[in-house]
Amino acid sequence: MADEQFADYTVPGLATENGHEIAGLLQIRLHALNDLQLTLKHVHWNVTGPHFIGVHEMIDPQVTTVRGFVDELAERIATLGGSPSGRTGELVGARHWGDYPLGKADTMTHLTELDKVYSGVISDHREVIAKSGQVDPITEDILIGQTKELEQFQWFLRAHQERSAG
Amino acid sequence: MADEQFADYTVPGLATENGHEIAGLLQIRLHALNDLQLTLKHVHWNVTGPHFIGVHEMIDPQVTTVRGFVDELAERIATLGGSPSGRTGELVGARHWGDYPLGKADTMTHLTELDKVYSGVISDHREVIAKSGQVDPITEDILIGQTKELEQFQWFLRAHQERSAG
Amino acid sequence: MADEQFADYTVPGLATENGHEIAGLLQIRLHALNDLQLTLKHVHWNVTGPHFIGVHEMIDPQVTTVRGFVDELAERIATLGGSPSGRTGELVGARHWGDYPLGKADTMTHLTELDKVYSGVISDHREVIAKSGQVDPITEDILIGQTKELEQFQWFLRAHQERSAG
Amino acid sequence: MADEQFADYTVPGLATENGHEIAGLLQIRLHALNDLQLTLKHVHWNVTGPHFIGVHEMIDPQVTTVRGFVDELAERIATLGGSPSGRTGELVGARHWGDYPLGKADTMTHLTELDKVYSGVISDHREVIAKSGQVDPITEDILIGQTKELEQFQWFLRAHQERSAG
Amino acid sequence: MADEQFADYTVPGLATENGHEIAGLLQIRLHALNDLQLTLKHVHWNVTGPHFIGVHEMIDPQVTTVRGFVDELAERIATLGGSPSGRTGELVGARHWGDYPLGKADTMTHLTELDKVYSGVISDHREVIAKSGQVDPITEDILIGQTKELEQFQWFLRAHQERSAG
Amino acid sequence: MADEQFADYTVPGLATENGHEIAGLLQIRLHALNDLQLTLKHVHWNVTGPHFIGVHEMIDPQVTTVRGFVDELAERIATLGGSPSGRTGELVGARHWGDYPLGKADTMTHLTELDKVYSGVISDHREVIAKSGQVDPITEDILIGQTKELEQFQWFLRAHQERSAG
Amino acid sequence: MADEQFADYTVPGLATENGHEIAGLLQIRLHALNDLQLTLKHVHWNVTGPHFIGVHEMIDPQVTTVRGFVDELAERIATLGGSPSGRTGELVGARHWGDYPLGKADTMTHLTELDKVYSGVISDHREVIAKSGQVDPITEDILIGQTKELEQFQWFLRAHQERSAG
Amino acid sequence: MADEQFADYTVPGLATENGHEIAGLLQIRLHALNDLQLTLKHVHWNVTGPHFIGVHEMIDPQVTTVRGFVDELAERIATLGGSPSGRTGELVGARHWGDYPLGKADTMTHLTELDKVYSGVISDHREVIAKSGQVDPITEDILIGQTKELEQFQWFLRAHQERSAG
Amino acid sequence: MADEQFADYTVPGLATENGHEIAGLLQIRLHALNDLQLTLKHVHWNVTGPHFIGVHEMIDPQVTTVRGFVDELAERIATLGGSPSGRTGELVGARHWGDYPLGKADTMTHLTELDKVYSGVISDHREVIAKSGQVDPITEDILIGQTKELEQFQWFLRAHQERSAG
Amino acid sequence: MADEQFADYTVPGLATENGHEIAGLLQIRLHALNDLQLTLKHVHWNVTGPHFIGVHEMIDPQVTTVRGFVDELAERIATLGGSPSGRTGELVGARHWGDYPLGKADTMTHLTELDKVYSGVISDHREVIAKSGQVDPITEDILIGQTKELEQFQWFLRAHQERSAG
Amino acid sequence: MADEQFADYTVPGLATENGHEIAGLLQIRLHALNDLQLTLKHVHWNVTGPHFIGVHEMIDPQVTTVRGFVDELAERIATLGGSPSGRTGELVGARHWGDYPLGKADTMTHLTELDKVYSGVISDHREVIAKSGQVDPITEDILIGQTKELEQFQWFLRAHQERSAG
Amino acid sequence: MADEQFADYTVPGLATENGHEIAGLLQIRLHALNDLQLTLKHVHWNVTGPHFIGVHEMIDPQVTTVRGFVDELAERIATLGGSPSGRTGELVGARHWGDYPLGKADTMTHLTELDKVYSGVISDHREVIAKSGQVDPITEDILIGQTKELEQFQWFLRAHQERSAG
Repeated sequence: MADEQFADYTVPGLATENGHEIAGLLQIRLHALNDLQLTLKHVHWNVTGPHFIGVHEMIDPQVTTVRGFVDELAERIATLGGSPSGRTGELVGARHWGDYPLGKADTMTHLTELDKVYSGVISDHREVIAKSGQVDPITEDILIGQTKELEQFQWFLRAHQERSAG
Repeated sequence: MADEQFADYTVPGLATENGHEIAGLLQIRLHALNDLQLTLKHVHWNVTGPHFIGVHEMIDPQVTTVRGFVDELAERIATLGGSPSGRTGELVGARHWGDYPLGKADTMTHLTELDKVYSGVISDHREVIAKSGQVDPITEDILIGQTKELEQFQWFLRAHQERSAG
Repeated sequence: MADEQFADYTVPGLATENGHEIAGLLQIRLHALNDLQLTLKHVHWNVTGPHFIGVHEMIDPQVTTVRGFVDELAERIATLGGSPSGRTGELVGARHWGDYPLGKADTMTHLTELDKVYSGVISDHREVIAKSGQVDPITEDILIGQTKELEQFQWFLRAHQERSAG
Repeated sequence: MADEQFADYTVPGLATENGHEIAGLLQIRLHALNDLQLTLKHVHWNVTGPHFIGVHEMIDPQVTTVRGFVDELAERIATLGGSPSGRTGELVGARHWGDYPLGKADTMTHLTELDKVYSGVISDHREVIAKSGQVDPITEDILIGQTKELEQFQWFLRAHQERSAG
Repeated sequence: MADEQFADYTVPGLATENGHEIAGLLQIRLHALNDLQLTLKHVHWNVTGPHFIGVHEMIDPQVTTVRGFVDELAERIATLGGSPSGRTGELVGARHWGDYPLGKADTMTHLTELDKVYSGVISDHREVIAKSGQVDPITEDILIGQTKELEQFQWFLRAHQERSAG
Repeated sequence: MADEQFADYTVPGLATENGHEIAGLLQIRLHALNDLQLTLKHVHWNVTGPHFIGVHEMIDPQVTTVRGFVDELAERIATLGGSPSGRTGELVGARHWGDYPLGKADTMTHLTELDKVYSGVISDHREVIAKSGQVDPITEDILIGQTKELEQFQWFLRAHQERSAG
Repeated sequence: MADEQFADYTVPGLATENGHEIAGLLQIRLHALNDLQLTLKHVHWNVTGPHFIGVHEMIDPQVTTVRGFVDELAERIATLGGSPSGRTGELVGARHWGDYPLGKADTMTHLTELDKVYSGVISDHREVIAKSGQVDPITEDILIGQTKELEQFQWFLRAHQERSAG
Repeated sequence: MADEQFADYTVPGLATENGHEIAGLLQIRLHALNDLQLTLKHVHWNVTGPHFIGVHEMIDPQVTTVRGFVDELAERIATLGGSPSGRTGELVGARHWGDYPLGKADTMTHLTELDKVYSGVISDHREVIAKSGQVDPITEDILIGQTKELEQFQWFLRAHQERSAG
Repeated sequence: MADEQFADYTVPGLATENGHEIAGLLQIRLHALNDLQLTLKHVHWNVTGPHFIGVHEMIDPQVTTVRGFVDELAERIATLGGSPSGRTGELVGARHWGDYPLGKADTMTHLTELDKVYSGVISDHREVIAKSGQVDPITEDILIGQTKELEQFQWFLRAHQERSAG
Repeated sequence: MADEQFADYTVPGLATENGHEIAGLLQIRLHALNDLQLTLKHVHWNVTGPHFIGVHEMIDPQVTTVRGFVDELAERIATLGGSPSGRTGELVGARHWGDYPLGKADTMTHLTELDKVYSGVISDHREVIAKSGQVDPITEDILIGQTKELEQFQWFLRAHQERSAG
Repeated sequence: MADEQFADYTVPGLATENGHEIAGLLQIRLHALNDLQLTLKHVHWNVTGPHFIGVHEMIDPQVTTVRGFVDELAERIATLGGSPSGRTGELVGARHWGDYPLGKADTMTHLTELDKVYSGVISDHREVIAKSGQVDPITEDILIGQTKELEQFQWFLRAHQERSAG
Repeated sequence: MADEQFADYTVPGLATENGHEIAGLLQIRLHALNDLQLTLKHVHWNVTGPHFIGVHEMIDPQVTTVRGFVDELAERIATLGGSPSGRTGELVGARHWGDYPLGKADTMTHLTELDKVYSGVISDHREVIAKSGQVDPITEDILIGQTKELEQFQWFLRAHQERSAG
C-alpha cells in the first residue's frame, strides 16, 4: 500500500497518522488471510485416504469464515483511510512465509501441516491485537473476534491428532 | 417429587392415583434423559483422534432430540398433575447409575462407552412402556416414540464398532 | 419397452424413427440408474466400521441426485414418444450386470465395490452420449450433465482409497 | 438376508432371536415398499388422457412418502441386528407378486390397477402389525404409522373411481 | 351420516361392517372437534382484562392444531368408507352438549370454562380409543395422538388456575 | 350478540350507536363465513369421481382464505365495541339459509351447489358494503377486500361448468 | 434491430460479424418467446370446462420458465453487441405466425392448439441450434437448455390428448 | 373481446350489462399493462452509460409488479363474465399509443421517456377508477391499488431527473 | 415543508394545487406517526410490573407497522410533489400535542395512556380521510388502510382495560 | 431522565452509583441515535438527481441497523436501572446539535452533509467508550460494536466523495 | 478436570500454564451455566397462576441462549488445551451453591428466586472477566458477550417485580 | 502440477493420457479464476466516486460466481486424476499476466480496466473449450457454462462505458 494511496482522513476521534499506521498493520494480516483462504481450498481438494469425506467437508465452512474475515479487514483498512490490496503478486512479495508445501496427501498429513499454518496466523494476529489495542479499540475488537474463531478451528485440527488415554 | 407437589387433578378419564403413579415412573426417566443430554455434550467435547470430526458432528442432532424428549416427559408429568424436577442435585441423589467415566478419549473408546449408556436408558424405557401401557396409552405412546429414536441412534454407535466380513 | 408402446410422435424437428431409437437407448440407462439408486441405499444401510457415519451420510445426497436423473431420463423417453419402464422384473431381465455383491461390510470394502459400479454406469453413459450426439443434442446434453455429477462422486469414492505421498 | 448376516445383538430388552425374527418379517415389507416406490414412479410417467396433470402430480408426494418408509424399515432391520437388502434381483426373487401390468394407459385404468397394488401392500402390513405387536411395540408403532398413510392414499385412488348419487 | 352414504369398501384387512362402525364412532368426535375449533376462536375474540394479550395469543396455535385434527378424522372416516359430515345444523342436532356459555369475560373466567370443555372432549376421545383399539389399531393411534396434544393444552388451562405454595 | 355485550366505546370519530349498528350487521356476515369455511371442508372431504384430486386440492387454500376473513370480521366487531359470536348453536339459530344439501357426490355436482352458496354470501356482502359505506369507510374497505376474493373463487367454480365454443 | 444499434464489440474470441449475425438470429427467437409467454397467460385465463383447475395451474410455472428464457436471450443479444427489442409492434411486424386463434374454450381444445404453437417454436429453436453451433457454442448451449424444457412441457400437452390401450 | 365471448353471468348483485361494460373498460387497461411490462423489460436491456447497474436493477421488481397487475385485471374480466385477451396482434390493433421509441440509450434518456409512458397509463387508469366507482366498488378498489404503486414508481423516475437546490 | 420545496409536478390526472394541498395535509400525519413510533418504543422500554413480558412483546410488531406507515406517507408526499420532513425539531414545533407523559410505570397505566394517544391519532387520520377522499382516492385508500390497523391495535389496548361480566 | 426514575438496583458487581452514571451517559447517545434514524429516513425521501436509486436504497439497511442500536442502548439503560427516554420533545431539548439542514437536494449534497452528522455521532460515541471502559466492560463492548458499524457506513459516504487518481 | 487431562498445548501466543489456568477458571463457569439451563427448564415446567403463559414462554429462548453459552465455554476450554467436564455428579460436587429451592409455585415467586440465581451467576462471570482480561483477551471477550445477555434477561426478571409510580 | 502428482486413473471411457492432458489445461484456467476472484474483491474495496455504491454492490455476486467456478474446475482436475494447485506462489509463477494495475480509483476507470481482464480470461477459456471438446465433452460443457456467465458480466462492464444515441 503505497503512501500516496492514503486518503486525507481517518475515522473520527483518531489522529490521522495513528489511523494510517493501523491500516498498515492490517494490510499484512489481510495478505495472511487471503493466502489462508486459498490454502484451505487447496487442502479441500487434495486430501486423500479413508478419512477423506469428513475432512473435505470440515474445511468448507472455514473457507467461508476466513473469506468473511478478509472482507472485514479490507473494509476496515479503507475505513481508516487506506487502500487495501488484494493483489496476488503483491501478496507473494510481501509475505514472510512460503507456499503451502503439500499436494495430494493423506488427511492426517494435511491436518498436521495446516496446524502449523494456523499457529503462524494466530500468533501474528495476537501481536496486532496488542499493538492496536493501545490506539483503536474498534480494530482490536475485530481482531479478537477473528482470533476467537481461528483458534476454535485450530482445536479441530489438533483434536484429530491428539492421542488420549481416556 | 414430593407428595405435596401433586395437584388434585390428573388427565380426564384416568383415576387420580393412577395418573400420579405414572407421573412418578416418568420422573426417573426424566432424570435419565437429562443426564443423557449432558453426557452427550460431554462426549461431543472430549472425543479425539482421526475420526474426530464425524463423531463430534454426529452427536449434536442427538442432543437436540434428547432435549426434546426431556421437555416432552416433563410436560407429561405436569399434565398428569405432578411437579417435574429438573434439579441437578436431586438427579444425582435419585439415579441408580454413576457419572460417565471417560474424559478426553479416542472416538471409538467413547462410542463403546456410550453404547452401554444407551443400553441402560433403553431397557429402563421399555420397562415403563410395559407398565404404563396397562394404564395410560398416551404415556405408552410417548415412550414408544422416544425409544424408537434412541434405538436408532444406538445402531449408529454399534455400526461403528461392528466388524463385518462383507 | 414393447413397440406398441410408442406414440406416433416424437419431438419436433426429429425424424420419428430417430426419436424412438434414442428412447430405446435411454431405457437401458434408466434401468441402470434405477438399480444404482437402490444399490446406493443398500450401501447406506450396510456399511460398518469406524468410518461409518461419514460414509453413511455421504451417500444420501447422491441418492437424491440419482433419483433426479432417473426422473429426467424417464420423462425424456416419454417426451420422445416412448413409454419408460420402471418395473423391477423388467429391469432384472434386461440388465447386463448382476446384483450388488456385498451385504454388511466395512466402509472401505463397500467404497471399492461401488467404484466398480460407477465405472460401469459412466462408461455406458459415455457411449450413449456419443451415439445420441449425432442425432439429438438435447439428449446428449442431458447425459453430459448426468455424467459430470456421476464422475465427481466417483472421485469421492476414489479419493478414499488413494494413498498419496504428499 | 442370509443368517450369517445377523449381528450378535438386537435392541436392549428384547431376546436376540425375537429381534432377528422381526427383522426377517420386515425384510419382505422392505421389498414390497421398494417395489411400490418404483411402481408409483412408473405410473407417474405412463398416465395419459385428459386427467393427466392432476394424477401425474398427485403421485410424486406419495413417492417421497414411500421412499421415507423404505428407509425407516431398512434402518429398523439394521437396528434389530439384521442386514437389510435393497438389491433388485433379490427383491424379484423373493416377492410373491409380479411386475405392475400396465405401460402407457389412461389415468383411470392406472388408478384402478394401483388400487389393487395398495390392497396387497396394506393387507400384508396389517399382518406384520399383528405379529410384531406381541413382541416389539416399537416395530408395531412404525408399521401402524406407515399403514395410516398408505390407507389415506388408497382413499385418493378409490375416490376417483367412486360414483356417488350426492 | 346416513347409511346410504357408506361406500361398499373399507380399509384392507378389516371387515366392512367393522370399518363402518368405527367410521360412525368417529363422526361424533368430528362434530366435537369442529365445535371446539369454533369455541376456541370465540374465546380468542372475547377474552378481556389485564391478561388479555397472553391468553389471546395462546389460543391461536391450538386452533390450528384442532383444525388439523378435524381434517385428520374426517379423512379417516372417508378412508374407512364413510361420508364425513361437516355441516353445522347436523352438528347442533347431533351433539350432547350445548353452546359455549360465555360472551365477553375476563381471561380467568374463560380459562375455567374452557377447562370444562376440554374435560368433556378428552373423556369422549378416551372412550373411543378403548373401543377402536380392539378393532383397528390405526384409528386408535390417531386418537391417541390427538388426545396427547389436547391433554397438554388442558395443562396450560389448568396451570393458570392453580395456586401453589412453592 | 345481546345488547349487554356492547362496550361503552366504539372506534374514535364514529358515533357509538353507529359503530354498534355496524357491528350488528357484521355479526351475520361472520356467521355466513363461519358456515362457509365448514361447508368448504365438507365438500373437500365428499367430492368423488375422476376429477377428485384437482377439486379436492383447489378448496383448501380457499378454506384458509375464508378462515382469515372470519377472524378479520370478528376482530372488527370487537374493535367497534361488540362481542363477536362464534357459537354454532347461535349460528344455526340466526342464519336464513339451511345446511349444505349434499353428502358424497361427483365433483361437478358439488361445484354447481357451491356456486349457489357463493352467490348468496356475495350478494349479502355487497348489501352490507352499501350500508356501511355511508357510515364507516374502514368496514366498507374490509368487506370490499373480502368480496374481491370470494368473487374470484366463484369464477373458478363457474369456469368448471362453462361450455365454450372457443 | 436496426444496424446502427450494434455496438462495435462482440464477445471475446468471436469475429464481430459472426457475433452480430448470431444476435440477429436470436432476435426472432426473442419475439417468439415473448409472444409465447403472452399466449400462455391468455390460455391460463380462457380455459373452461371440468378440467379447468388442473390446466389453469399447470400453465403458470411454464409462464415463469418462458419469461426466464426471454430474459436470457435478450441479455445474450446485448452481450453479443446487439440491441434486443421487446417492442410489441415490432414483434407483430416481424413474426411469421398469427395471433393465437382461441378465446374462451374447453381445456382440451386449448391444449391441442397450444401443442401446435409449441411445435412451431421448438422447430425454429432447433434450426438456430444447428446454425449457431458452428459459430458460438455458448449460444448453442443456451438454446439447447431452453429446447429441453419446451419439449418436456409439450409432452404434458400431448399426454393429455393421447389415448392409450394400457 | 368479441360480444359472443361474454358468459351469461356476471358477479352477484350486479346487473349483467353493467358487469360486461366494466369488463370492456378493463380490457384496454389490460392491453396497456401488458405493453408496459414488455416496455419495462425492453428498457432493462437497453440502458447504457455510467448509471447502468442501478437503473437496470431498479426496473426488474417493477416488471414483477406490473405482471401481477396484468393477471389481476385479466382474472377480474373473467370474473365479470368476459374473456380477457392477451393476444399481441389484438393489443397492437387496439391501442391508442405507439411502440416505445428508444433502443439503446443512456439511462437518463430512457427514464425521461418512461416517465411519459407512466403519465399515460396512470391518467387512463384514473379515468376508469372514476367510471367504475359508480358501478362496482370491487373493480374500483383494484384499480386504486394498482395506481398507487404505478404512481410511486413514477416518483422514482422523476426523482432521477429533478434538480433541487437543497 | 416550505413552499419552495414543492416540485412543479404532482401525480397525473390531479391538479397540481390539489396534489400539493394533499401533501400538506399528509405532512402533519407524518409527524404524528413518527412521534407514535418513538412513543411506542418508549413504552416498550418503560413498562413494569407482573404483566411486563406480554405487553413488552405486544408493542414491537406495532412499531414495525407504524414505521411502515411513516415510510408510506412520506413517499406519498414525495409522489405528490412535496418534500417530506422527518426532522425532529420541525416535528416538535409543528405538533399540537405534547410529549408522552409517563416514564417507568405499570403496564396498565401505560396502556391507559397509550389508548388516549391512539384516540388522537385515529381521529386526525379520519379527518384527512374525509378531506382527501373528495380529491384523491389513492391517498384516501392509504389512510383507510392505516386507520384499519391502528384501530385494531387500539382494541388490544382497550381489551386489557375492559371489565366484563361474562 | 429524572433522578426519581432510577431503580434501586443496577447490574450485579457494579456499584449502584456507577451503574446509574453510565446510564446517564447512555441517555444522550440514545437521543443521538434516535435522531440519526429519523435523519437517515429524511434523506432517504429527499435525495434527487441521477444517482437517486443507489443512494435511496443504500440508506434503508443503515436505518435498520441504527434502529437496532437504539433498542440496544435503551434496554442497556433499563438493565443498569435507569428509565430510557424516547420522547421527541425531551430529545430536542437535550441535544447539542440542530435539525438536519437540507430538504430535497442532490445525492452528493446530502452525502456530504450526512458525513458531518456521522463525524459528530462517532466522536461522541468514542468519548463514552473511553469513559465507560473504566467502569463497565459490557457497556464499552456495546458501544465499540456500534461504532464499528457506524464507521464502516461513514466510509460509504466518504467513498462517494473521494476523487482518486488510480 | 484432573491435571492429566490437559493437552501439552494451549492457544498460540499464550504460555501453556496461563492457558491451562484460564481453562480451570472456565470449568466452574461451565458448571454454573449447565446448572442454569436445567434450572430454567425446571422453572418453565413449574410456574403456575394467572401469568403462566407469558412467563412459561419467556424462558425458552433464554434456555437456548444459555445452552449456546455452555457449548461456547466448553469448546473454549478444549481450545485452551483442557478437557471440559459436563458430568452431573462432578457438577454437584464442585458447585458452591445448592439446588434451586422451588417446585410448583406462582410465577412471581419463581421470578424473584430466579433473580437471585442470576445475581450469583453474573457476579461470578464478572470476576472471571477481570481475571482473564489480564491474560487472554479472547476469553475475556467471550465472557463479556455472555454477561451482556445474562444481564439483559435479568432486567426482564426485575421489571416484573418493579413497582413504579409512572 | 508436477507429474508425480497424477493418479493412475482418469474418468472411465477416457484414455489416461488424455484425461491428464485435459487436467493440465485446466490448471492454468484455475489460476486465472483464482486471480480473478481476488482482483474482483480488490476492485470492490478500491472503487471511489459518485457511482461508488452501485459498482461496489454489483461485484459481490460475481465474486461468489467466480469462486464457484474455481471449485468446479479444481474438483474436475481431481476427478480427471490430477492434483489441483491453489497455491499463491505457484499461481504468480505460472501466470502469463501481471498484477491488476489500479489501487483506489474512480468507478469508470476500474470498469474499463476490469473489461480488459475479462477479455483475457474469456479468450483463454474459449481456447480450452475448443481443445477439450475433441476429447472430453464433460469438461467442454463445464467451460461453456462458465464462459456464458463471464461474458454476461462483461456486458455489465461494457454497458457502463457505452455511449448510445438512443
